Amino acid sequence: MDRIALLAERARGSGGGVDRLAFSSQEAEAVGLVAGWMEEAGLSVAYDGLGSLFGSTDGNTPDVAVLMAGSHLDSVPNGGAYDGVLGVIGAIESVEAMRAAGIRLGTPLEVVAWRCEEAALFGQGRLGSLFFTGELSLDTVRGWERPDLPLTRLLEEAASLPQRASSRSLRGYLELHIEQGRRLEASGTTIGAVTAIPGATRWKITLSGRADHSGATPMGMRRDALAAAAELILAVERAGMAERDHETVATASAIHALPGAWNVIPGLVEIQTDIRGIEQESIDRALDFVREAARGIASQRQVEISFEEKTRGKPVRLDDGMVSAVEKTARSLGLSVARMPSGAGHDAQTIAPYVPAGMVFVPSIEGISHAPGERTRPEDILAGVQVLAGTLMSLALGE
Amino acid sequence: MDRIALLAERARGSGGGVDRLAFSSQEAEAVGLVAGWMEEAGLSVAYDGLGSLFGSTDGNTPDVAVLMAGSHLDSVPNGGAYDGVLGVIGAIESVEAMRAAGIRLGTPLEVVAWRCEEAALFGQGRLGSLFFTGELSLDTVRGWERPDLPLTRLLEEAASLPQRASSRSLRGYLELHIEQGRRLEASGTTIGAVTAIPGATRWKITLSGRADHSGATPMGMRRDALAAAAELILAVERAGMAERDHETVATASAIHALPGAWNVIPGLVEIQTDIRGIEQESIDRALDFVREAARGIASQRQVEISFEEKTRGKPVRLDDGMVSAVEKTARSLGLSVARMPSGAGHDAQTIAPYVPAGMVFVPSIEGISHAPGERTRPEDILAGVQVLAGTLMSLALGE
Repeated sequence: MDRIALLAERARGSGGGVDRLAFSSQEAEAVGLVAGWMEEAGLSVAYDGLGSLFGSTDGNTPDVAVLMAGSHLDSVPNGGAYDGVLGVIGAIESVEAMRAAGIRLGTPLEVVAWRCEEAALFGQGRLGSLFFTGELSLDTVRGWERPDLPLTRLLEEAASLPQRASSRSLRGYLELHIEQGRRLEASGTTIGAVTAIPGATRWKITLSGRADHSGATPMGMRRDALAAAAELILAVERAGMAERDHETVATASAIHALPGAWNVIPGLVEIQTDIRGIEQESIDRALDFVREAARGIASQRQVEISFEEKTRGKPVRLDDGMVSAVEKTARSLGLSVARMPSGAGHDAQTIAPYVPAGMVFVPSIEGISHAPGERTRPEDILAGVQVLAGTLMSLALGE
Repeated sequence: MDRIALLAERARGSGGGVDRLAFSSQEAEAVGLVAGWMEEAGLSVAYDGLGSLFGSTDGNTPDVAVLMAGSHLDSVPNGGAYDGVLGVIGAIESVEAMRAAGIRLGTPLEVVAWRCEEAALFGQGRLGSLFFTGELSLDTVRGWERPDLPLTRLLEEAASLPQRASSRSLRGYLELHIEQGRRLEASGTTIGAVTAIPGATRWKITLSGRADHSGATPMGMRRDALAAAAELILAVERAGMAERDHETVATASAIHALPGAWNVIPGLVEIQTDIRGIEQESIDRALDFVREAARGIASQRQVEISFEEKTRGKPVRLDDGMVSAVEKTARSLGLSVARMPSGAGHDAQTIAPYVPAGMVFVPSIEGISHAPGERTRPEDILAGVQVLAGTLMSLALGE
């Protein structure tokens, strides 16, 4: 708790929350502090070309297969203290606890702090894990350079640090994280054994009607883009409600209406939708439902509706063995545990297609996340780290 | 048409439309041009303390009752060429036509160009006519002074000009104006004999739900302020539809949703509504319908909904004799004419409670107004001025 509080204090922004964007001086300071704690825990510190931080129990030996645990250190603007940080600190303290207890595992452990998990900076997140799996190149990252973000120089600095041996491989990956929702809290459950991470489809939907005088245009002569958007927003909600048994959620998250004057019927409205789930068929049904609703609204209201797809992610299932191991560990510690999908994206989803990956969730108070009020009760933090450490031990001992 | 085009050209703004806000140098230039045209037409020019411009056929004689015709010269930002200007130029040319034809009326005529009819500048319009009837004081106007608008000095300048004799009274008031809607065009009618001017009730409605993660919050655990707002927007529309036979219209004209991020359910939404009509009972039913709908939505969705009333205007009936005179004149000229309510507010509604007031509408092409594309066909302009002149003659001769 002290380490989490210290990291938050060092990056406290003007909005009262944590400002520790990837590639910022605040993130650099956090990486420095965490690298120091890794060394105190007896871990060998190394980096990769993007600047993700690794600490291994085996001295960064080449050609070794390890169990990896961790998360990320970057935050959204005005974010919270726990998102990402918990998974990194939790993994370090798991190693420290094992060491203090004299437990030696057959499989080496490696703690990771991925760089730039949040999408807030580039509109694309999980850079550290995507670079790790080879799905993202440094050239792509350099292409995002801008005056306030000298990426070429920052990547040169990262390359000048001790580099992680590239021949090392993973036996498995486990990430402890706050839930960022309110399901655990609402059901009074301490631990979430995460089964899947959703794929999000994001649309910018534009509705073009006709801007007319609100007083001089009879009701029957209108092509009101905002009334059309209202119907579509409710259709998005219905799409989610129809698929709720499949954990699909559908949200209209933003809206802009023009011209926005008291006495003008809106002629142009743009809405943003976020539809995600863990079952592709259910997601597809929800997407189809919204498309179909839009066709009906457009035809009935003589409003043009166009869709621009900003992202389309695929849902990722986490490893069954990992889910069971998390569940079993929690039960053995006397903790309440529930299988559940994640709502947000995480680095674990990048790793999952390659090696067995799992996640441990702890409750977020009132579900608040990505905000200054993001909090988790200390006893839940403790429980989460115990489950992380216990699961890592069971996996490493099971070899 | 040349005068209308010249006034527009002199005030052409960067948006391509007319920028001639009240108290601006553009409005001052227009007042100067129009005062000159009044003098060319043989009218005696005078002003009042707010700077409204008057031109009389009787030399501004005290204690005389006159027939007044006119409108205003100010525009909204990036507005059109015809709104207001048509009624002023039309009245001057009516006087010129009568003079050229050697027609002398028993009742003197007075042309007016009211200052500041548009509400765009102060959120309150019809300043000129409200000052004329004594409902607005110069102290109130001075209270709106701001760095870019030295009202105290501008009012001193207005007071230094020749003043209209305050003992003059009105026999009647007639205003020619573009419709600003599409009813005349849609029905193929040239002249609107305006029966009433609506009273608008404007609400800023705030919906407070809860901002949650759009991925991590199941459909059943949401307090989505945007979905609630969508239901309310459709309720506003239904309120108007239910009262359409009574000419009441109901519009949700603006919306703002926070935080407006891709992955956050909107927690706070503000909408603006504009509900207006010409029958108080129908307006009241529409307002009640929206209030009742809001109560239901708030209770069902656990969202707080609060109303802030920005304006509440009463509908104003125009004088039956005036409506009949306009209708009769149009028919005698072989023009198609329809009785209709106005959709927008006009200076005539300020005058109507005191003396018989009427309005003549001509079609707006595609209903476009308060925008650079505001247009009326030249033959409809001619028809409107003929009806204005003919109605003034019939009223003055009927004395």
